[in-house]
Amino acid sequence: MKFTEQLAAAWKNNDSLLCVGLDPDPAKFPAHLKDKPDAIFRFCREIVDATADLACAFKPQIAYFAARRAEDQLEALIAHIHDKHPGAPVILDAKRGDIGSTAEQYAIEAFERYQADAVTVNPYMGRDSVEPWLAWKDKGVILLCRTSNPGGSDLQFLKARVGAGETPVFEQVARLVAEEWNTLGANPGQCALVVGATFPAELARVRAIVGDMPLLVPGIGAQGGDIEATVKAGRTGAGTGLMINSSRAILYAGKGEDFAAAARQVALETRDAINRFR
Amino acid sequence: MKFTEQLAAAWKNNDSLLCVGLDPDPAKFPAHLKDKPDAIFRFCREIVDATADLACAFKPQIAYFAARRAEDQLEALIAHIHDKHPGAPVILDAKRGDIGSTAEQYAIEAFERYQADAVTVNPYMGRDSVEPWLAWKDKGVILLCRTSNPGGSDLQFLKARVGAGETPVFEQVARLVAEEWNTLGANPGQCALVVGATFPAELARVRAIVGDMPLLVPGIGAQGGDIEATVKAGRTGAGTGLMINSSRAILYAGKGEDFAAAARQVALETRDAINRFR
Repeated sequence: MKFTEQLAAAWKNNDSLLCVGLDPDPAKFPAHLKDKPDAIFRFCREIVDATADLACAFKPQIAYFAARRAEDQLEALIAHIHDKHPGAPVILDAKRGDIGSTAEQYAIEAFERYQADAVTVNPYMGRDSVEPWLAWKDKGVILLCRTSNPGGSDLQFLKARVGAGETPVFEQVARLVAEEWNTLGANPGQCALVVGATFPAELARVRAIVGDMPLLVPGIGAQGGDIEATVKAGRTGAGTGLMINSSRAILYAGKGEDFAAAARQVALETRDAINRFR
Repeated sequence: MKFTEQLAAAWKNNDSLLCVGLDPDPAKFPAHLKDKPDAIFRFCREIVDATADLACAFKPQIAYFAARRAEDQLEALIAHIHDKHPGAPVILDAKRGDIGSTAEQYAIEAFERYQADAVTVNPYMGRDSVEPWLAWKDKGVILLCRTSNPGGSDLQFLKARVGAGETPVFEQVARLVAEEWNTLGANPGQCALVVGATFPAELARVRAIVGDMPLLVPGIGAQGGDIEATVKAGRTGAGTGLMINSSRAILYAGKGEDFAAAARQVALETRDAINRFR
């Protein structure tokens, strides 16, 4: 099934726009897991099993695995999600971006090795750096548009001359993706965008440009974005269209052996807080 | 030793501005290596040993390793370079880019796990996505500025309003890096830029903006960039300042058991062709 269809089914089945980000930092793990050789896998598996009916997607961040030589645990984690929670979309947050021949290798990494359903990609190198990902016809390609960090403004908020007018770079990215890149590839309609929750007005601008395209929205919780403003600015007419990501607030809600139950409680509250404004 | 100093020493000691890119594609390996479990390591090691006195740096592209679960071979390769060819700078071509807490994880991956001397980084997420890399005081951070692929123009060539004037996005990146990001961190002067060889006029513009900052220049050889135009546009007053990368033309110069000798011959010719125009 195509990623965007899989996502739409998850929105509906779990009544959820919440994406659970998996950024496993062993320094923050509960004591009973810290010495285990596969602590990263175990920690993430418990989080996944405790929140799978509350989330529309899981988003493992590959840097946390790669920094600790834990690629095998990332493989095992994604295999576990596909096995135990069929239908739950897995977004590999890798923010890759390179020339075509290299992008093909990264796509093999994300889609064949890790069996991710979608991947985050950096748009800075343009169309031919994105096209190879689209050859995997059921996979999703989620392009960085407006990121939630302070430095996001350095380039993304530059005003660019386009035709007779002026437009911020991030809006030009949204237009390029919606009008061009999303029409390419084996199965047009594979693209989505990353737009941070810290800028609701800009989220609304992107929504106006891209129609019903799914938006992955980091920045609520630890990064300070407001849920009501985010949902109202980013939702589609159908009250969906969003993957609102929370990582640290859920993962580290508890510090003891019951950390997964604490994570479930925060995930439940976050899902419901989101749903109040859909 | 700081990356930029290590690079300056390699320019001088090997009388070379040639960077050998290591993009190991097993489909193109000589027959006698194809069945070996560590074929990627063996192939790259032979290339490295045959060209180390002709190169100013080696640039392994991590996607080619990650696509084949060969992270251990990448670790072994870089350890081999440091062990057998001390002083040869290793640039991990990873084009990472993420928010600060994630960038820290990627920096651990590149600098502690792989022991790279420098890394390529994508500037799209701005200053705070770059700053964590600079905490490693002897490491180099090479920001994408103007890439050599056709789609590079999609964003990098947009004209942005800056103050009263207009400037292409890639020139604004060059300015941000030279004037701000290069002054940050534990040991100011850690930055360099990626500027493709396919656009000599733009390479000259970047050189005019950044003074003597090192430029990593892909795009000669298989990608079609002209050596004379590249060197004349990009060299510093001292006739250095460049890491001119060639990957495929060197790696796959030969198809037989003597592939490393064939690679050496092409590396020698390329180094000397570059030197004719310094």
